[in-house]
Amino acid sequence: DMAVRHYTLDFSLSTAGKERRLSGLMSIFHEQELTETVHDTNGHGYLATFVGKNGRVAILRVHSHGLVTIDLQCYEEDNIAQLDNVMILFNCIVLHFPRRLPALVRGANVDRYWPTADGRLIEYDIDRVVYEEDSAYQNIKILHSQQYGNILVLDGDVNLAESDFAYTQAITGNGKENYAGKEVLILGGGDGGILAELVKQKPKMITMVEISFMGSVIDGCKMYMRKTCGNILDNLKGDCYQILIEDCVPLLKKYVQEGRTFDYVINDLTAIPISTAPEEDSTWEFLRLILDLSIQVLHPSGKYFTQGNSANLTEALSLYEDQLEKLSCPVGFCKEVVCVPSYLEQWVFYTAWKK
Amino acid sequence: DMAVRHYTLDFSLSTAGKERRLSGLMSIFHEQELTETVHDTNGHGYLATFVGKNGRVAILRVHSHGLVTIDLQCYEEDNIAQLDNVMILFNCIVLHFPRRLPALVRGANVDRYWPTADGRLIEYDIDRVVYEEDSAYQNIKILHSQQYGNILVLDGDVNLAESDFAYTQAITGNGKENYAGKEVLILGGGDGGILAELVKQKPKMITMVEISFMGSVIDGCKMYMRKTCGNILDNLKGDCYQILIEDCVPLLKKYVQEGRTFDYVINDLTAIPISTAPEEDSTWEFLRLILDLSIQVLHPSGKYFTQGNSANLTEALSLYEDQLEKLSCPVGFCKEVVCVPSYLEQWVFYTAWKK
Repeated sequence: DMAVRHYTLDFSLSTAGKERRLSGLMSIFHEQELTETVHDTNGHGYLATFVGKNGRVAILRVHSHGLVTIDLQCYEEDNIAQLDNVMILFNCIVLHFPRRLPALVRGANVDRYWPTADGRLIEYDIDRVVYEEDSAYQNIKILHSQQYGNILVLDGDVNLAESDFAYTQAITGNGKENYAGKEVLILGGGDGGILAELVKQKPKMITMVEISFMGSVIDGCKMYMRKTCGNILDNLKGDCYQILIEDCVPLLKKYVQEGRTFDYVINDLTAIPISTAPEEDSTWEFLRLILDLSIQVLHPSGKYFTQGNSANLTEALSLYEDQLEKLSCPVGFCKEVVCVPSYLEQWVFYTAWKK
Repeated sequence: DMAVRHYTLDFSLSTAGKERRLSGLMSIFHEQELTETVHDTNGHGYLATFVGKNGRVAILRVHSHGLVTIDLQCYEEDNIAQLDNVMILFNCIVLHFPRRLPALVRGANVDRYWPTADGRLIEYDIDRVVYEEDSAYQNIKILHSQQYGNILVLDGDVNLAESDFAYTQAITGNGKENYAGKEVLILGGGDGGILAELVKQKPKMITMVEISFMGSVIDGCKMYMRKTCGNILDNLKGDCYQILIEDCVPLLKKYVQEGRTFDYVINDLTAIPISTAPEEDSTWEFLRLILDLSIQVLHPSGKYFTQGNSANLTEALSLYEDQLEKLSCPVGFCKEVVCVPSYLEQWVFYTAWKK
């Protein structure tokens, strides 16, 4: 693994002692046998690049307003302890609350950075890739985390980890529902978490509709997310469930035509779109279509459960709530904010019902 | 705010099309009117620094093994949209799975990066500092997060947020205990969360011992963590509780001498030390002292609750468990892994009892 470690250290230089501290910093750079190049910044402070042995590179920037940023890059295989010491030396010279972040690891074989839905930089404790496939619909990865177990990542979004029973619980009504003898429809749910949980409650029949099978979410999860799905994905049919491998839209339309209804419809397809940009129109239209059909196949006393998105994406969430107002049959709804362990952000879940 | 935004983009150049892609990248740099300096890297690939207007700086590195890293720094007040477009242009040229992380914001007035106990880089959605004090014992900050509410940060460690009832629940026995009519001792707990929760259960008496008052954790929390503490910190005394502002060690020693016992001892002082280095010896000794005294004042059928640390710090946790084996009276213990929303890592809690 020829990954690069990128250290950062930032601090503010007060006028008092500024020269002494800067020359202290310089002496550390020079002790490391780094070749200095000073750049012309057109009056935007001091900027120097230092190149050392083993491909080490440092950038020192002293901004006009007193902020100093130091970047230090080296190979992962380099003597990290020695460089850690350099950073500690820098730390000692700088007395004004230096901010030193954990090193960014760049270009590693196993990527540890999976930003949240609200766009924050997050490093996971991921140590290996256990599964990776490109299905016709998405890129599917299952990554191992020491604390969350295996994590399903779809198109770069953290979808569910083995630690995330809280997700399954939230999208099935928080243990307040009685599924015994009920008709249940699950849209998506390929990780098997919802299905595995609900079959325990002896429903009349659960129909789960997942779009693809081979080289798909089901395929990866039945091998590597067994803490989530148990053995429920090993067979497409059981006493009180069936998994249909097909597109849910034509199926929902057929159910509407037949006048078939369900006590529970659980939409576990994807989070609601983040963007409100025109190019996402088709995503919102798809969401609206599924939502409308789902409510149509809902029994008058039935419940519709679905995930929303990050609690911070207030604009996307209100757009979703606008959709709920525009359905062909009027619905009531409520929402709840839930902590799903591996998400590292608060997540909104919705319940809707026919008015 | 003269903060600096630091964009990164990393990708791997395959041999095929390498030249064409590199010259595409270069043309983007040149279009941005950046002045290029090429550095001698002693055979460690290509390194160029680009300096542009408004203090913009870019670093392009092409490593010998094909990894390309681009760093782009600009001021927060700069035309971010334009730079976002530059990064998108880069993205388009690079077809081999580029990794583009959310920009690091460096030198901002409000710091959003608070690494986890297991040393991972984490960006919080913090938008303002609501309280900051240096007490005789620690640096106390209360920071506002959109999704977690106010967050108490002690010496740079995220301690508790208003969203974190899961912490209070875990350290009081997960709702399985009956505190009615019981004698309870809380060590620390200055945020008031445990106290506010337990008084609801009509215990005989809760004694909470917190080391300082003015300009302290209590002071900040009673103003800014009211979703956690309610009004319980407004008075140091109530029907069934008292808050003693003193060092808990002499008090515990006095209780031992008097033969006084408690049905519950809840140690909410600090997480167990992360380091196993000799310089941390005194921290471990302090921990052992408190632990030993706490067990001594525990009623034979009583329970001792405390937090451990990050579930990933397995070495520190086993060291703690070793301490539990070495106490003056033998104890049994169990542990549990809990998701505390604002921690962004799984956390271990311990229950101990007299054997």
